[in-house]
Amino acid sequence: MQRRLLLISNSTMHGGGYLAHCRAEIEDFLAGGKKHIAFVPYALADHDGYEAKAKESFTAMGHDLQSVHHAGNPADAIADADCVFVGGGNTFRLLDTLYRTGLIEAIRARVAAGMSYMGSSAGTNVATLSIKTTNDMPIVMPQSFDALQLVPFQINPHYLDPDPGSTHMGETREERLAQFHEENATPVLGLREGCMLRVDDDRMELRGTTGARLFRAGQPPEEFVPPCDLSFLLSETQR
Amino acid sequence: MQRRLLLISNSTMHGGGYLAHCRAEIEDFLAGGKKHIAFVPYALADHDGYEAKAKESFTAMGHDLQSVHHAGNPADAIADADCVFVGGGNTFRLLDTLYRTGLIEAIRARVAAGMSYMGSSAGTNVATLSIKTTNDMPIVMPQSFDALQLVPFQINPHYLDPDPGSTHMGETREERLAQFHEENATPVLGLREGCMLRVDDDRMELRGTTGARLFRAGQPPEEFVPPCDLSFLLSETQR
Repeated sequence: MQRRLLLISNSTMHGGGYLAHCRAEIEDFLAGGKKHIAFVPYALADHDGYEAKAKESFTAMGHDLQSVHHAGNPADAIADADCVFVGGGNTFRLLDTLYRTGLIEAIRARVAAGMSYMGSSAGTNVATLSIKTTNDMPIVMPQSFDALQLVPFQINPHYLDPDPGSTHMGETREERLAQFHEENATPVLGLREGCMLRVDDDRMELRGTTGARLFRAGQPPEEFVPPCDLSFLLSETQR
Repeated sequence: MQRRLLLISNSTMHGGGYLAHCRAEIEDFLAGGKKHIAFVPYALADHDGYEAKAKESFTAMGHDLQSVHHAGNPADAIADADCVFVGGGNTFRLLDTLYRTGLIEAIRARVAAGMSYMGSSAGTNVATLSIKTTNDMPIVMPQSFDALQLVPFQINPHYLDPDPGSTHMGETREERLAQFHEENATPVLGLREGCMLRVDDDRMELRGTTGARLFRAGQPPEEFVPPCDLSFLLSETQR
């Protein structure tokens, strides 16, 4: 399957600047001259402010960025983009807007035709099969939880290990993912803050620092430390 | 409006037993002889196991409890109950099952006719206007986020104050509720673990320990320490 993806767990590391920890990976992903990037700001409410923040980072890397929210039809705005970048925020609001603007189909078609896709946090959630493993609050109801389905598994961004000192009684992240697997069979890759996935067609690599934890229904979790090959997750068809 | 509700933030406090921290409030709520309690176990996957756990607690308090999942039509199982108790777990799975079993309408009708309602965590979420302020993972998609609407506002159970020492970059609970208010006007009451709401028709009291934090769109949050009267939240009609 033709696809070029960079799926980032989080846009900012504690104490660092916006996209600073993944800048080298982004530069590698966008190598080969100035690229035109279409920015999708819908996970946050302030589209102009979010565009300005993203533009500053990508301009510094030598690329051109414009947000799709200026276009009468946002789906038209990705027609001649080299790459779409879907920023983080609230995953429900983001997916709802992707449906309402027609971007869900437009992005899928353009990725299949060779446009690169970069996502961070909520932008990574919506690249997967569904948003059923987001950490976000369901502040709006999208028409479906089905997402862009650029990869055939689920991602949990900002994956967080249990805090042994916590007295809070809400479920741990691992308990939440176990509940997901009581209702669904799809594997879930928990991406800790600091790591990301680079996908080139049928090849997928875990990159960055920290690591990822793979959850499958009824099986013990598996740990992966970057850099490592995770292409096997692209060829599994279990849903 | 006729209603008798006990809405608990969490069923277990760190280091304590199931329902131990709210036992005195439950006993007061169920006072006046042995009551027949219909238990709704659908927030967890193991209905029999969940019923056994709940039955043990309520039997020790001198009441009779049976889970609705044994009935061919779960809505029939609440027809002669004195009280329904909706247990915690995953709010999406719970609400989805309330719709699929017809319990959503049956519970609303029986509460309006005098049946008492007790909820904990997910069972408290579904008593409010909608599940849009749950903390849970959206592991299944219910037909609607609209809930039982026994009270005209939102609750965030397990409300958690920001941890000043955290290096995790996921949104704090307060940031998530600010995102809710970018899309919705309804007030949200954050119930910290250890506190609960007792509602008798148009009177509502905050009880238990810890406290609650009230969030309104565009306004600074307000703190409430139990015991205190919060009846004003029942008479606001803003949605």
